[in-house]
Amino acid sequence: MNTFGRIFRLTTWGESHGFGIGCVVDGCPSGLELTEGDIQNELDRRRPGQSSITTERREKDEVEILSGVFLGKTLGTPISMFIKNRDIDSEKYESIKNILRPGHADFTWREKFGHVDYRGGGRASGRETVARVAAGAIARKLLKRIGIEIIAYTKEIAGIRVEDEISFGDIDEIRRIIDSNTVRTINKKIAKDMERAILDAKSDGDSVGGIIEVIAFNVPPGLGEPIFARLDSELASAMMSIPSVKGVEIGDGFSLSRMKGSEANDEFFIENGRILTRTNRCGGILGGISNGMPVVVRIAIKPTSSIGKKQRTVDIEKMKETTIQIEGRHDPCIVPRAVPVVEAMMSLVLADHSLLSGFIPRRLS
Amino acid sequence: MNTFGRIFRLTTWGESHGFGIGCVVDGCPSGLELTEGDIQNELDRRRPGQSSITTERREKDEVEILSGVFLGKTLGTPISMFIKNRDIDSEKYESIKNILRPGHADFTWREKFGHVDYRGGGRASGRETVARVAAGAIARKLLKRIGIEIIAYTKEIAGIRVEDEISFGDIDEIRRIIDSNTVRTINKKIAKDMERAILDAKSDGDSVGGIIEVIAFNVPPGLGEPIFARLDSELASAMMSIPSVKGVEIGDGFSLSRMKGSEANDEFFIENGRILTRTNRCGGILGGISNGMPVVVRIAIKPTSSIGKKQRTVDIEKMKETTIQIEGRHDPCIVPRAVPVVEAMMSLVLADHSLLSGFIPRRLS
Amino acid sequence: MNTFGRIFRLTTWGESHGFGIGCVVDGCPSGLELTEGDIQNELDRRRPGQSSITTERREKDEVEILSGVFLGKTLGTPISMFIKNRDIDSEKYESIKNILRPGHADFTWREKFGHVDYRGGGRASGRETVARVAAGAIARKLLKRIGIEIIAYTKEIAGIRVEDEISFGDIDEIRRIIDSNTVRTINKKIAKDMERAILDAKSDGDSVGGIIEVIAFNVPPGLGEPIFARLDSELASAMMSIPSVKGVEIGDGFSLSRMKGSEANDEFFIENGRILTRTNRCGGILGGISNGMPVVVRIAIKPTSSIGKKQRTVDIEKMKETTIQIEGRHDPCIVPRAVPVVEAMMSLVLADHSLLSGFIPRRLS
Amino acid sequence: MNTFGRIFRLTTWGESHGFGIGCVVDGCPSGLELTEGDIQNELDRRRPGQSSITTERREKDEVEILSGVFLGKTLGTPISMFIKNRDIDSEKYESIKNILRPGHADFTWREKFGHVDYRGGGRASGRETVARVAAGAIARKLLKRIGIEIIAYTKEIAGIRVEDEISFGDIDEIRRIIDSNTVRTINKKIAKDMERAILDAKSDGDSVGGIIEVIAFNVPPGLGEPIFARLDSELASAMMSIPSVKGVEIGDGFSLSRMKGSEANDEFFIENGRILTRTNRCGGILGGISNGMPVVVRIAIKPTSSIGKKQRTVDIEKMKETTIQIEGRHDPCIVPRAVPVVEAMMSLVLADHSLLSGFIPRRLS
Repeated sequence: MNTFGRIFRLTTWGESHGFGIGCVVDGCPSGLELTEGDIQNELDRRRPGQSSITTERREKDEVEILSGVFLGKTLGTPISMFIKNRDIDSEKYESIKNILRPGHADFTWREKFGHVDYRGGGRASGRETVARVAAGAIARKLLKRIGIEIIAYTKEIAGIRVEDEISFGDIDEIRRIIDSNTVRTINKKIAKDMERAILDAKSDGDSVGGIIEVIAFNVPPGLGEPIFARLDSELASAMMSIPSVKGVEIGDGFSLSRMKGSEANDEFFIENGRILTRTNRCGGILGGISNGMPVVVRIAIKPTSSIGKKQRTVDIEKMKETTIQIEGRHDPCIVPRAVPVVEAMMSLVLADHSLLSGFIPRRLS
Repeated sequence: MNTFGRIFRLTTWGESHGFGIGCVVDGCPSGLELTEGDIQNELDRRRPGQSSITTERREKDEVEILSGVFLGKTLGTPISMFIKNRDIDSEKYESIKNILRPGHADFTWREKFGHVDYRGGGRASGRETVARVAAGAIARKLLKRIGIEIIAYTKEIAGIRVEDEISFGDIDEIRRIIDSNTVRTINKKIAKDMERAILDAKSDGDSVGGIIEVIAFNVPPGLGEPIFARLDSELASAMMSIPSVKGVEIGDGFSLSRMKGSEANDEFFIENGRILTRTNRCGGILGGISNGMPVVVRIAIKPTSSIGKKQRTVDIEKMKETTIQIEGRHDPCIVPRAVPVVEAMMSLVLADHSLLSGFIPRRLS
Repeated sequence: MNTFGRIFRLTTWGESHGFGIGCVVDGCPSGLELTEGDIQNELDRRRPGQSSITTERREKDEVEILSGVFLGKTLGTPISMFIKNRDIDSEKYESIKNILRPGHADFTWREKFGHVDYRGGGRASGRETVARVAAGAIARKLLKRIGIEIIAYTKEIAGIRVEDEISFGDIDEIRRIIDSNTVRTINKKIAKDMERAILDAKSDGDSVGGIIEVIAFNVPPGLGEPIFARLDSELASAMMSIPSVKGVEIGDGFSLSRMKGSEANDEFFIENGRILTRTNRCGGILGGISNGMPVVVRIAIKPTSSIGKKQRTVDIEKMKETTIQIEGRHDPCIVPRAVPVVEAMMSLVLADHSLLSGFIPRRLS
Repeated sequence: MNTFGRIFRLTTWGESHGFGIGCVVDGCPSGLELTEGDIQNELDRRRPGQSSITTERREKDEVEILSGVFLGKTLGTPISMFIKNRDIDSEKYESIKNILRPGHADFTWREKFGHVDYRGGGRASGRETVARVAAGAIARKLLKRIGIEIIAYTKEIAGIRVEDEISFGDIDEIRRIIDSNTVRTINKKIAKDMERAILDAKSDGDSVGGIIEVIAFNVPPGLGEPIFARLDSELASAMMSIPSVKGVEIGDGFSLSRMKGSEANDEFFIENGRILTRTNRCGGILGGISNGMPVVVRIAIKPTSSIGKKQRTVDIEKMKETTIQIEGRHDPCIVPRAVPVVEAMMSLVLADHSLLSGFIPRRLS
């Protein structure tokens, strides 16, 4: 259940305050050039402690590849990766280990497992996603071989929305913009507003959420397996598995439910011998299968559950009501750091289905 | 890929204009009392031809159980079910078999499979969902044993939204209301407005979409398997696999992304020795695991793709642009008939996870 | 659990004395020419009532394809097949429904499921294998496209062993011989001895077992996924899932355990630019992956459990010891009719792995 | 494909001459007491360099648990384990990296993956099984809770067979005997003969194989999922996945194929209110489900492929025939060290099915 995928399969492991976080990527084709540097680049984008709006936990998140690569190329065998936990400060969790933090998984994990690692959220911590980003970096390299490019960015924070459009031609420039502002959005001016909203919430001891949009360009038509391994089903599952995600929509998503059919349908036309659609309201997926247009997904992220404000809750050991004020090191808004995680999950799904459909062979050399 | 689930597993088969639609339910515990009547009740709710706002295709959708049941009880062996296609009228599809219908899966299935059954959408037709409703009826019976009740209704059609709340105590009354209006909503007055919006679209040769909300009551805390078989991931995958669904949200979903943490977090309290939350913004799921509050999911359904209006498109055989006006028998709004399908998918996920977590034993007698 | 395979997936259903036996084949590529005749040919080889050494149950075993095929070609969607049970005579089972038949699954199924279909063994009956043969016929057609040919025959019955060797060049002639003798072996003279041993056992109210050898020719090197989806693992699992099979060996199997390494190792050489081995003691599989030599598997089948002789046993309802003498229609030796089942299981494994490794594409046209 | 199991799932990774070997055990219930010592005990039994008949590679095989355990108990989250490779000597492999070693996976892995780690067999090395033994130790602890005890021993080496019988009462004594002789058999006198046969082969530059028998006591009736996840199928798959295994039989296996039904059937009787069988020819499994008698499996292991004798083979780079004499550190007979691996695989299968059938709960505390 800690495994994702059908051919390209990711298994993650590790707790927030344990030895570290790791993963095993199984099913990656042999012959792919791969170095730790390829992976480190992505990890650095997710890493905590990058700016005033992220947690102060200092993790270098250096990845070690322990298997599956030989002389700079993948072997087709499982790729084991490990990221050590270094800056662990578990002390603050001792005193609140029986106090259920609202919005967190404390209660449900306790109900399910009985025995839990209460330090920093244990395995339910967002820290687990570092393993997904590591795996996603491999998937992304694989996808590049068939021309697929994936880009995610902050669409909305605290209700502040960016409406700029992205086109494939500008992708490098867009990436530069995204990585040059603290909130990872595509409009520098709106970035300032978003950052301010985050800092305001932070100074209030509160938190905010937002929306991330992810687009995959150059996805060939034919990816996705009806009826239940549809591309949209797999993407919804992948995205919803990211902590704090509470909604997923494909293409125009919920807006489509308010359109007329004549407005919602994407009309077909021919360009350079290829069949395209004039609009892309369906987000590149029809009948669960990619149609060759960009695959567009948007996800809703709730505000960070850890807040400084006083909240009413329960001491589960004493079975008594009480209150809590959460200290510790937290992101007042998790959206910017979730951007590379969302890219990773999109990469994993597309790599898996590219293998499943035969667009990428099992052996590259 | 036509199989859904881990322990309680559904495999569906069949094309819209073939012999019929069927399914195999594997992993149902032995000893469950089950008759064709149990299943027929649910099928009758999904059946076409029920009112002026549904397709005129006349299907009685009578289910036959072909295996897995003996002397009125399940054997623990696969339950095979079959629903014959009776009212097939494929003629209209012959002339447009090479004309891509906008919004439909014609193009993508053709790209993926090459050889397709173009009659009535073939396997991509919504007719496939009759098998899910049949399987869902079994799952629902199973869930009843541990007190879980599931109810879905039309939340919104063409932007007309019902805001009434549902509580567990009123569930029988609510069910009666839902089944007594053509749009399957919970407010009779708003039902009329919704029906009018559908009929207006129909007379325009157009279509409308909407939103369905589904609630599962009495779900015990502890269902869902982190990290990737989280209850919310599985529900998102299940719902997104329903044709025409383009968005899924859990609890307050996209609205949560615009709240503050202090507003979004559900505070815990104690009632009769049980830990509950004062609000249920998280929709009954925290950290991927049910928390004992009602599980609430909303899904966005796009307007029916088949419309009478003229649309621009492509003849894929001649590779020339052309136009199409779709005749034939279609629902101008698929939302009301999707309500039982949504209930079925929720039932399947919860039954599967109840087995996985041991809340329901593999053998009932 | 009633599903076999990873890409090319078979789900079977049905009880011996229920409506019939069926299956769903999912993951078959689109564009494969397929008729009911292709499947019927194989079913006819497994059919009961073919000679004096098989059961008297008269089943024509006519297959109906209910989905997944359109205009004579597969659609890439699930292929549902149904074989009706016609000659059902359940009466004899009523009186012994609580008496455990030694060697049968009566006791274990009852322990596992509580409620069982005691008529003719229910789902534990060998009759379930008719669905495997139907599915295997499709797999076999698929494999033919890449030149793979599979042949199984009776190697031994009641200790009488045939030592003739099979080579690919003679395959058509060998098939003719196999299908022209009642025991399905490759030496007509020994066939007589085997038949006599079966008839002797039959007249004694007893039964005999034997060994089947199955060989797949023209398997390309590279099939099989280490470490756990090795080709030999998958074959062992497939073969052991056939009722009455109690042993599986690859290549020289158990004999290899008594050889020296210098004798057991197959030396490599080059012929026409291909790397071959001088001997084939490893049965075409090294390190879990096919090496291009014929894949050779042998399976041990126990004597039919149903015998006329008096046996001591238990009445599970009364929990008292008793005796039983089994009447009814049974094969005194199941080996000849298991031959096509063994071919089917080999076909299923190889088709699945050919798809997994990309030797067969997901779309044929 | 490097993952085994359904609920209790093992994923292994690592190459013989890489950083180390590791695994992730997913699906272990929470609340199981577990220390590195529990695992180390089993690893020490598999460790190389234990006697004159094993390889001289010196590995301490110290296991580190990196996740999934907190305060001495399992969390229900993935248990990651790591065993460092220390005594690596890859030099000898450089010169023969293009020479196919007969009996080894060199050729097939090269065909499948193109790019391979030729050092010490890479991932095809028997060294990978250290991860299985680590995981098996956890499974074994779990099984102990419901009274299941597993014991494997060398039944035969180089044709020298031990015929002593094992009964549950003597299990501790038998274990002591097994671990006190170099060949891990249950008869000290025959142990000497076996050891001599191994040393003779070694001094000849040759190798020998053998047979291992594994018995699970106190398995409750009802384990195993028909039709395809039968207990015997799963065991066959598990055993055949061990390198060098070429045959598997359940109970009397191949011998059964030569018996009469009246001899092969195990008659039922009642003892202390339990239904037992007088004999156990079926090896504790009927119809794919355990019957409460000891589960007995025997596996055939081929002689070690690495031998000092000159063998004819091919240089795959030059595509020329050549010869090879393998130096390096090898076991002249792998059977004794495979004994704990066989126990591990049996433990994994039984733990998985105990969870699947509900005999072990998902949460222990």
